[in-house]
Amino acid sequence: MNNNNLNHEISEELHEECGVFGIYDLDGNDTTSSIYYGLFALQHRGQESCGIAVSDTEGPKRKVLSHKDMGLVNEVFTPEILEKLSGDIGIGHVRYSTAGSSTRENAQPLVLNYVKGTLGIAHNGNLINALELREELEYTGAIFQTTIDSEVIAYHIARERLNCGSVEQAVARAMDKIKGAYSLIVMSPRKLIAARDPLGFKPLVLGKRENAYVFASETCALDAVGAEFIRDVLPGEIVTVTRDGVFSDTSRCNQNEARCIFEYIYFARPDSSFDGVSVYGSRIMAGRILAKLHPVEADLVVGVPDSGNAAALGYSMESGIPYGNAFVKNNYVGRTFIKPKQSQRETSVKIKLNVLKDIVKDKRIIMIDDSIVRGTTSARIVGMLKAAGAKEVHVRISSPAFKHPCYFGTDIPSGDQLIANGHTVEEINNMLGSDSLGYLDIESLPNLIGEGMKFCDACFSGNYPMEPPTQDIRGEQG
Amino acid sequence: MNNNNLNHEISEELHEECGVFGIYDLDGNDTTSSIYYGLFALQHRGQESCGIAVSDTEGPKRKVLSHKDMGLVNEVFTPEILEKLSGDIGIGHVRYSTAGSSTRENAQPLVLNYVKGTLGIAHNGNLINALELREELEYTGAIFQTTIDSEVIAYHIARERLNCGSVEQAVARAMDKIKGAYSLIVMSPRKLIAARDPLGFKPLVLGKRENAYVFASETCALDAVGAEFIRDVLPGEIVTVTRDGVFSDTSRCNQNEARCIFEYIYFARPDSSFDGVSVYGSRIMAGRILAKLHPVEADLVVGVPDSGNAAALGYSMESGIPYGNAFVKNNYVGRTFIKPKQSQRETSVKIKLNVLKDIVKDKRIIMIDDSIVRGTTSARIVGMLKAAGAKEVHVRISSPAFKHPCYFGTDIPSGDQLIANGHTVEEINNMLGSDSLGYLDIESLPNLIGEGMKFCDACFSGNYPMEPPTQDIRGEQG
Amino acid sequence: MNNNNLNHEISEELHEECGVFGIYDLDGNDTTSSIYYGLFALQHRGQESCGIAVSDTEGPKRKVLSHKDMGLVNEVFTPEILEKLSGDIGIGHVRYSTAGSSTRENAQPLVLNYVKGTLGIAHNGNLINALELREELEYTGAIFQTTIDSEVIAYHIARERLNCGSVEQAVARAMDKIKGAYSLIVMSPRKLIAARDPLGFKPLVLGKRENAYVFASETCALDAVGAEFIRDVLPGEIVTVTRDGVFSDTSRCNQNEARCIFEYIYFARPDSSFDGVSVYGSRIMAGRILAKLHPVEADLVVGVPDSGNAAALGYSMESGIPYGNAFVKNNYVGRTFIKPKQSQRETSVKIKLNVLKDIVKDKRIIMIDDSIVRGTTSARIVGMLKAAGAKEVHVRISSPAFKHPCYFGTDIPSGDQLIANGHTVEEINNMLGSDSLGYLDIESLPNLIGEGMKFCDACFSGNYPMEPPTQDIRGEQG
Amino acid sequence: MNNNNLNHEISEELHEECGVFGIYDLDGNDTTSSIYYGLFALQHRGQESCGIAVSDTEGPKRKVLSHKDMGLVNEVFTPEILEKLSGDIGIGHVRYSTAGSSTRENAQPLVLNYVKGTLGIAHNGNLINALELREELEYTGAIFQTTIDSEVIAYHIARERLNCGSVEQAVARAMDKIKGAYSLIVMSPRKLIAARDPLGFKPLVLGKRENAYVFASETCALDAVGAEFIRDVLPGEIVTVTRDGVFSDTSRCNQNEARCIFEYIYFARPDSSFDGVSVYGSRIMAGRILAKLHPVEADLVVGVPDSGNAAALGYSMESGIPYGNAFVKNNYVGRTFIKPKQSQRETSVKIKLNVLKDIVKDKRIIMIDDSIVRGTTSARIVGMLKAAGAKEVHVRISSPAFKHPCYFGTDIPSGDQLIANGHTVEEINNMLGSDSLGYLDIESLPNLIGEGMKFCDACFSGNYPMEPPTQDIRGEQG
Repeated sequence: MNNNNLNHEISEELHEECGVFGIYDLDGNDTTSSIYYGLFALQHRGQESCGIAVSDTEGPKRKVLSHKDMGLVNEVFTPEILEKLSGDIGIGHVRYSTAGSSTRENAQPLVLNYVKGTLGIAHNGNLINALELREELEYTGAIFQTTIDSEVIAYHIARERLNCGSVEQAVARAMDKIKGAYSLIVMSPRKLIAARDPLGFKPLVLGKRENAYVFASETCALDAVGAEFIRDVLPGEIVTVTRDGVFSDTSRCNQNEARCIFEYIYFARPDSSFDGVSVYGSRIMAGRILAKLHPVEADLVVGVPDSGNAAALGYSMESGIPYGNAFVKNNYVGRTFIKPKQSQRETSVKIKLNVLKDIVKDKRIIMIDDSIVRGTTSARIVGMLKAAGAKEVHVRISSPAFKHPCYFGTDIPSGDQLIANGHTVEEINNMLGSDSLGYLDIESLPNLIGEGMKFCDACFSGNYPMEPPTQDIRGEQG
Repeated sequence: MNNNNLNHEISEELHEECGVFGIYDLDGNDTTSSIYYGLFALQHRGQESCGIAVSDTEGPKRKVLSHKDMGLVNEVFTPEILEKLSGDIGIGHVRYSTAGSSTRENAQPLVLNYVKGTLGIAHNGNLINALELREELEYTGAIFQTTIDSEVIAYHIARERLNCGSVEQAVARAMDKIKGAYSLIVMSPRKLIAARDPLGFKPLVLGKRENAYVFASETCALDAVGAEFIRDVLPGEIVTVTRDGVFSDTSRCNQNEARCIFEYIYFARPDSSFDGVSVYGSRIMAGRILAKLHPVEADLVVGVPDSGNAAALGYSMESGIPYGNAFVKNNYVGRTFIKPKQSQRETSVKIKLNVLKDIVKDKRIIMIDDSIVRGTTSARIVGMLKAAGAKEVHVRISSPAFKHPCYFGTDIPSGDQLIANGHTVEEINNMLGSDSLGYLDIESLPNLIGEGMKFCDACFSGNYPMEPPTQDIRGEQG
Repeated sequence: MNNNNLNHEISEELHEECGVFGIYDLDGNDTTSSIYYGLFALQHRGQESCGIAVSDTEGPKRKVLSHKDMGLVNEVFTPEILEKLSGDIGIGHVRYSTAGSSTRENAQPLVLNYVKGTLGIAHNGNLINALELREELEYTGAIFQTTIDSEVIAYHIARERLNCGSVEQAVARAMDKIKGAYSLIVMSPRKLIAARDPLGFKPLVLGKRENAYVFASETCALDAVGAEFIRDVLPGEIVTVTRDGVFSDTSRCNQNEARCIFEYIYFARPDSSFDGVSVYGSRIMAGRILAKLHPVEADLVVGVPDSGNAAALGYSMESGIPYGNAFVKNNYVGRTFIKPKQSQRETSVKIKLNVLKDIVKDKRIIMIDDSIVRGTTSARIVGMLKAAGAKEVHVRISSPAFKHPCYFGTDIPSGDQLIANGHTVEEINNMLGSDSLGYLDIESLPNLIGEGMKFCDACFSGNYPMEPPTQDIRGEQG
Repeated sequence: MNNNNLNHEISEELHEECGVFGIYDLDGNDTTSSIYYGLFALQHRGQESCGIAVSDTEGPKRKVLSHKDMGLVNEVFTPEILEKLSGDIGIGHVRYSTAGSSTRENAQPLVLNYVKGTLGIAHNGNLINALELREELEYTGAIFQTTIDSEVIAYHIARERLNCGSVEQAVARAMDKIKGAYSLIVMSPRKLIAARDPLGFKPLVLGKRENAYVFASETCALDAVGAEFIRDVLPGEIVTVTRDGVFSDTSRCNQNEARCIFEYIYFARPDSSFDGVSVYGSRIMAGRILAKLHPVEADLVVGVPDSGNAAALGYSMESGIPYGNAFVKNNYVGRTFIKPKQSQRETSVKIKLNVLKDIVKDKRIIMIDDSIVRGTTSARIVGMLKAAGAKEVHVRISSPAFKHPCYFGTDIPSGDQLIANGHTVEEINNMLGSDSLGYLDIESLPNLIGEGMKFCDACFSGNYPMEPPTQDIRGEQG
């Protein structure tokens, strides 16, 4: 599993931005608890704030019940709060946010009243023209109470709704204005609508459980609520669930897809599948490719938990070198963990991750990790292995080197903070203190997810699927 | 003092809706702590939620720091939170709200970004055309994230700002659209603006402390921050404080004022003065008038704490009958007090209010209270006095009988819940179990605040100073 | 009412140490909620921690349910917690403690298992031989987990119980060892026992409600739970309530009583009576005596709220000078109030206490307070009156001057911090900035409570009713 | 890693009872933060309450600072609290407790004053003669304020201290009285003392970091604070650390050791080693032995996370069948997780543990778990694998079948709740729905930890190393 709050630290803070969940349960049972369990399954996509909004399709048109706050799902929701949130339709959201905008106001779902009643919006992604749209809206008298892109989307839906016959049409027209990455779940008084940007950056799946339809960022959330996977929402598609059934508008679908490859490499839970590809399978494949690209004689292949484990297993399969566990991770290290003082910093990584000394002693180790950001944590882990007696440590990274910022929903630091900028692989190897270092190459990426599927690898290649903004507008994505 | 959280219970829940505070401290010291202490002094005007928003006039145009939550000032603000809120300009708000809308989203100040930067709004009062305006706005694509009138006002200011040269002009134009009661403090990136509706329902005062200007609902908040009272904001006036000084726009002032008389009788703190009248003085006067209107032979005049005490003293002065304390109030009974079960209900009032038995025993008591709403609490207090041995209990009320709902910011129950509707004074006297009962008469009200000052007594007389709405729109006032 | 958390500040921190409550409800209804309401009524006697312990006389012998924590009754007890505490017998405690020992471990009631089952102890007072007894016990192998005297008492009861036939006998024998001030409520598996030290320093009363017997520090707690006052527990008496009735052991009663006179002057709630004397009445009397001792020409008599009000009324009655309210107190200033910075200190008192300027302006004021400790707060209040326009301020104190520490349960600062030590009345008058100053004299004290009743006035006179300890052992009283 | 809060649920609630930590840092730096990080590393040994007590060997003899509460280390300690706990000597404790006694009073360390100053005690284990000793003590006048065995130990140390020259001697004499399992860390004003019962049930290790000596339940806690492992405290040994060095008393050591074998199989963290045996190594070995004992043709060996993983790897090594991950565990499911309603129970396990469908589909799976308690969770996991398409599921358990209760510190349910009582392996296999089932056999246990080391396997064999109590005294262990 992509293990999250901890691994973020260890991986030097690469963050998914959000996870979304929606359900329309015609029987009206367990709506809220399903969202609660669904958000649990999506918690790895955002740990700073979360929220649930529910409504009753038979109830008064403007009555939405919601609760959101800073904190983990675990911390924000109590039995008392869940009990108050009843309805047959609802959406949920987990959010990570960069420091500056980590405020309660920005927690989602966004709930609002507009000309046609209420709207609840849960959004994963990042618009690249949000600033322009915001300004345009302001020049027509709009006021903004948050700094999230989702409010821009909400305005467009609300305004378009004045001129068209249904919410889903308003969503469609809004999609013609907003640009960037978005997987969106919208709740109107009588409908649950899911939409995915035409490039399909972020995943979005549809499932079913008895009389309920479920949307979620990943299939692991379907599993958590006992729903069966039906299909992916297509890039560009709008799926509308009403009491009368499920309707699809695919008029915005085209073949210019740009799925985020890093979802497979790092973000998503390994037990999720989307767009026809198993996350776990793609990681195994990354390990296999690495073994071919960067073979080395060694005694043991180990993964940096949790996201390096699958690739390590793949490397082991391909190379025939035994797979082993070399690390024990402390899962109790959570959000409120008090960091060691500078003087104790050396032991800092050890508290989160300890080495099985007996296993690595006198061994030549191949250590698989999913990525290197700044390099400091990787260096510490290599150091721990050596201190535990490893004779050699060969680092293999199951993704190409990060060199470019992401404008579509991933919090990658600006270019000058990335160790791969301005350093050769040899130099990085020296900085890590490892005996050799090998990255996956960009050319191999298609093999991770199967030939023919189009994806975005801009963070590695710099080839952005749409013109990136000239200003760095990142930091307020939903 | 109008003692608040408790007395509300005892008085059967008559509530002031809000208190506002604003400061522009050119030296930038103590801005936030001044708001904090100012809100403490205004806490009696709203105990359900509170908030502070500050900004730095020299800082970036869109940077407002704010914190608001459900709870008392005491509970919402910690030293850590106050420390984070720094600036030279700021506003604060305390709020009471009726059950349905008692949510965190509705807490104030409202903070928003719009075409010209940021806007912070703190609002006391209640619009009578809010629903119409909301609908109008929605038909132009507006979205609403709260249910408070203040958001309607915010929209109007934001939209007018597109067409005029300054925020204060936009406030002025917004005032031409909104109808009802409002005392408003608006914070823009460089200005602090106070405005009061032309009828002047709710009080609003201006004070000064060294290089700081202060606005507040009542003068007691000026005292709390060491500011000197300068003058009232006039009904209809807009006062703008900038780095260059204080500017006034009185073009909307006229003589059709309708100050809320009940502010003097009950809501305001006795140590406050506004519109030239001391609250305490007006209560003493109410007692004196009562003594003339409804004299009775008795041994002791006592007030129901805390708001009945001043009128009791006035009654004693006028009648020559000795004043005494008959009650001890438990000030520890707060918001989280767990109410007795039905079986223990008899002792319920006693926990909050106990009788000094030695004082009332064998005495003929004149008991002064400020109002009777449903009558149940008054009946219990009369019962307690009798149980403690009072020979006679003569109830005198320092206001006329409530007969009509208020649409301008006071939470008076609907007419059929008011004991004075459908019952004669004689009948009410029987229901209370008292030996006689006398209300202040409507004709005497001018004497409370001085001849010549115009006021609103619609809750007593039904003479509304502006056409009341046909729907009951109450419950979401700011 | 002796209004507490605030007044403590204003009075420069004179503290009662504890309040106790106990109930044996043969019907077993409402035991816990009665303790809860009883503690509310006693909250003025201790605001730092509180606790409740209950047990079922029909239940297993060692099963006591309890909850205690730092904080007000309001803060420590939630409906969920109260619900878990069920039984037919129970005790409660509120505690104030000096800084050093303000820990959760020291919260009461103390609950323990010993040879005969369980024991719950709630204790108000202060032993003078606690240190000696502690050492003696330690030399026989005792361990202490708290620093409160109550644990010493518990040990003595437990040990004596080995050699005698009943808990009440063990309490009696323990009383022969412990010296000092104690009002004690002990709960054994089948009995509720109340005991008062032979000098009767601290009050303790017995009440009855249907099938329940109630003990409390003050009668106001009986009122709060709907119980009728039966009688005081006598100094030296042990009262035992069992299923079979109420039993009294008066063999330790004698005539050497030493009731704490300061309970009447300041600590107790004005609606309480004990040892035959009404607290409110004694304060009225103190005011009357003051008027005779220190007459002065003036326009208005005012009390410093809340404890100065009754004496002010007494002064007014005796002198014929009108009584008035000059102050408004802010009851929202609680434990978590954030104190102003040094630079704002001037306005500090104003936040808690504001002056009614219209009332005092151009008047000659007689200001009545209950005591002066360090003098700084009194000086500020005098200053506020003068700043509000008072022509003269004559301070009258309804107690003699504090000159000596108390070893029996009152937290009076050490002698050198008391303004009355080393300063003449004239000097103090100058320091306060008042126009004249008058204390009650020691000779008049008997008149407050009636001739013939013996009392302790050691804090004024230095005449200790028992030899004070040579070490200052204060600070850990129960 | 033995992954803890979650796995307990999954494993149907087998609980370690406690973890202990102690440090004497002659330089006095980082004492408290070291305990904090040490407790983090030991959190898997107890998640219900935790505490830290520190003292300054140079400070006053009775001054111990401590904090303890219900909750995880993460929840109980804030930076503010840690800052207040300063000293050069200190102990810490994490505790699990069965429902009945899960109260704050029972949290450890126990801190007490006694004849020679202060004593802090942290205790892991369970006495079998605690009830007798308690009664004996009570008959000499002892009072008990908790229900933990540790208080009995404290009393014995305190009493013995009266008759002997040092604390360590008193500990020694107490050890002659108490019977059962205990790993003990005692802090006196000037000494840190560790003691282990003569049978050595529970682990206890000694480490060193610069000028600091560290004791801990497991070596993983030494790693977490940067200390080097020196040696195990021997069964029966008392190790005393003073400013003058480290002293050992081995006079109670003998060869009748009875180390808890289940520490290796389940409780301890895999990166810990004690008594010369690596936990991870012993689990690998268990897997290897299982492969020999219960071979089966299959496609994949998987472990139930986290404690089944190592044995699965061992099984894979021995059998040559590939190792794989089949499960993803949700590490966000913590103490406050709201459990699904009965109607949703089916999905309950899925929220915590999800299957990688692609991996198990159409495969013959060998599923390794560490134990079966009631069998319901195992059955659900088997069901999940089958539902995901596994052709066969062969369950292998890396321990023998549980048949007997443990009286020495492990919370194993009473015999009739254990599925292995009254059911044959074949029957259990049917109940699980698996295709075959194989346990480790008792005869193989010596191979896990090396020949010659004596251990306790009473929970499997019923051969208790000391006479078990006739009453079931479990539930209040420290």
